[in-house]
Amino acid sequence: METLHVVIVGAGFGGLAAARELADAPVRVTLVDKNNFHTFQPLLYQVATSGLASADVAYPVRGIVARQENLAFRQATVIGADLGAKVLHLQHDEHEVEDLHYDHLVVAAGASTNTFGIPGVDHHGFPLYNLADAVRLRNHVLERFEAVDAEPALIDEGALTFVVVGGGPTGVEVAGALTELFKMVLRKDFPQLDIDRARVVLVEMQDHVLGPFSPVSQRHARRALEERGVDVRLGVQVARARGNQVTFADGEELPCQTLIWAAGVQANPVGAALGLTTGRGGRIEVLPDLSVADHPGVWAIGDVAAIVDAKGRAGTLLPQLAPVAIQSGRHVARQICCVAAGRPAPSAPFHYRDKGTMATIGRSRAVAELPLGIKLRGFPAWLAWLGLHLVMLAGFRNRISVFANWAWNWLTYDRGPRLIFRARSTKE
Amino acid sequence: METLHVVIVGAGFGGLAAARELADAPVRVTLVDKNNFHTFQPLLYQVATSGLASADVAYPVRGIVARQENLAFRQATVIGADLGAKVLHLQHDEHEVEDLHYDHLVVAAGASTNTFGIPGVDHHGFPLYNLADAVRLRNHVLERFEAVDAEPALIDEGALTFVVVGGGPTGVEVAGALTELFKMVLRKDFPQLDIDRARVVLVEMQDHVLGPFSPVSQRHARRALEERGVDVRLGVQVARARGNQVTFADGEELPCQTLIWAAGVQANPVGAALGLTTGRGGRIEVLPDLSVADHPGVWAIGDVAAIVDAKGRAGTLLPQLAPVAIQSGRHVARQICCVAAGRPAPSAPFHYRDKGTMATIGRSRAVAELPLGIKLRGFPAWLAWLGLHLVMLAGFRNRISVFANWAWNWLTYDRGPRLIFRARSTKE
Repeated sequence: METLHVVIVGAGFGGLAAARELADAPVRVTLVDKNNFHTFQPLLYQVATSGLASADVAYPVRGIVARQENLAFRQATVIGADLGAKVLHLQHDEHEVEDLHYDHLVVAAGASTNTFGIPGVDHHGFPLYNLADAVRLRNHVLERFEAVDAEPALIDEGALTFVVVGGGPTGVEVAGALTELFKMVLRKDFPQLDIDRARVVLVEMQDHVLGPFSPVSQRHARRALEERGVDVRLGVQVARARGNQVTFADGEELPCQTLIWAAGVQANPVGAALGLTTGRGGRIEVLPDLSVADHPGVWAIGDVAAIVDAKGRAGTLLPQLAPVAIQSGRHVARQICCVAAGRPAPSAPFHYRDKGTMATIGRSRAVAELPLGIKLRGFPAWLAWLGLHLVMLAGFRNRISVFANWAWNWLTYDRGPRLIFRARSTKE
Repeated sequence: METLHVVIVGAGFGGLAAARELADAPVRVTLVDKNNFHTFQPLLYQVATSGLASADVAYPVRGIVARQENLAFRQATVIGADLGAKVLHLQHDEHEVEDLHYDHLVVAAGASTNTFGIPGVDHHGFPLYNLADAVRLRNHVLERFEAVDAEPALIDEGALTFVVVGGGPTGVEVAGALTELFKMVLRKDFPQLDIDRARVVLVEMQDHVLGPFSPVSQRHARRALEERGVDVRLGVQVARARGNQVTFADGEELPCQTLIWAAGVQANPVGAALGLTTGRGGRIEVLPDLSVADHPGVWAIGDVAAIVDAKGRAGTLLPQLAPVAIQSGRHVARQICCVAAGRPAPSAPFHYRDKGTMATIGRSRAVAELPLGIKLRGFPAWLAWLGLHLVMLAGFRNRISVFANWAWNWLTYDRGPRLIFRARSTKE
């Protein structure tokens, strides 16, 4: 029997988990990603707020999979497929195209920001979903302060007003981190500036932050944010965004040059590009075993897949979180292992084991909700958050670097690489 | 007497040294740079070869000068001046212009690459003079390997041929570091690839590398490079560069997709923009005390200044090196201190004290020539090089990070952030 070829699209949490699970299987694995690095998305907000360097949250995929002998990495973009012939069409930077035959195709392409068609947000909003987003936001935030230092009148035009839309973990974490960057670091960097004029406004359309958390954690998070000076606005929606103004649904107009969009994600459009059926948020429809109906050998996992929550109300989908991606990736890999071993695919339904959720609200504050009803708040939750993220981080070297940076930031109230820097692909 | 206002253009080694020397003087200092960070240029080649992250060699200027109360930083570009009225014209990112009145103007704008008008080099060559250059080169080198991994035939088109032009310290260091990146790291990252097909060619028009060094050090450096597999070609000049080919003066054509240009620098054009007299390499003509004739209060230091070497043959200029920049910056600052203290400017001529030069040739190999005829080679020279650069590096945090990275690289034969990443100023 010829060795099966498994192609995994996406080197995020889900794709890497699936790849690792196939390490000892009698298959050839090709892992495809448009970047040559894996991005540790949970810490992107720290790059955006100068707490970590971009290299701390990105790790070369080839470094991660170097020891897995049945795996090859391919840096390329998926531009289409012939699912009947089981051929995937790839494009490389050099605009060369490549056809890749697969026996099993695992789509793990993740998600991208969803602006829900609100006018101006696509153009003026700052998402925080990939490394380029984070560096772009960091540059923009620091440039506001440099501009105001030269021309203080710009403050009245919203140069120091930072609106964060979305009260989920990302929104809460970036809002908290911004206030700390301003009060602990930029206060020293800009002594002539009245730092208290820098405002962070957190906007959430529901009447609480941290939707998936319990009310007690929600209240704790809100209090922690307000103690840090964040203007938390609940039950509020954004109606329109301009370069120097945000308009809310109630008609209020706020001068603001920085709109950070953490209000939602949609699936990576690769599903449609492959001709697969997509549902809510562009997520690929999957059967309970995470295979795609009518397309033998095609699977979808993680953020890009519409995975029904067996335990939830009828039709509810599992959240687009790292643990779901990792567990669904392993589940699919195990199915493929069976086929590779010559056994029939068990078609076992995927069951998600919720291991809890966490969110940090800056220095020494966090909320964590673990199984068995364990709820942590404040410093213990923050330590749990630090530990978990250090363990999850890919690459021993990155773990050391991130830990050292955190220790430094915590002990000195300092921040690291607050650089305004763009690598050009061509010379100036 | 009103406080004198000293404006320093450039936050490189020279500008920072001048600023520090003025810390206790009764003057107001404004430090101007187009970037908000100081770049530690001696280690740029390690960023280009994935040994260090960009944040390791860049440090926020505001962090460096935070404790200096008589200093303000301004991120802006110099677009001109009215030297008669002692007014400097600045431009900010927002295209706002600002007029800055000065009593003393210290021009410390550094240098940029000089391609000597050789056809194609401006467009196809990769300089290594600023942080953007280094990251751009790193991206390009890693992209060659990704491309070849997908399409091995590209090797015959020069995808893995890396020509380094210039046998000075920068050329020697980048050539040595490239061979180590290939043999120690990319060999593991690209197991399917015959890494020995990756070639590094070092081209020097003179008959020896490391011009300023003694013949024994030159021979040692050349031997060390050749032991690492570098094809060292002496007495050779580049006649033309194309995207996939280099043509040498003798007519030989070499397929090559990466031409690294380390063959020379010229002064930053700011001198001409300010209407100052410039000489060889666009360097600003200065009097022996580093003041500019006919323009009271204007001084030039470091790479941008044509400083005559009092000890050298008539007309020879001091080399464009960090120690010259630092010493000349301090010299000018001391002159200004005298004036600020109400004493007449001593018009003391600047005397450069040569403290020696060093160049590293990768892992555990270097050459160092210190005063009193002390010459070090191999491991001792390498340790001296490490120590000196750690001490010179701005920022305790960066010192720790660089030291940790070096220790890691040396112990594990690994490299760090081999990322292909460009921060976009706009969204894709």
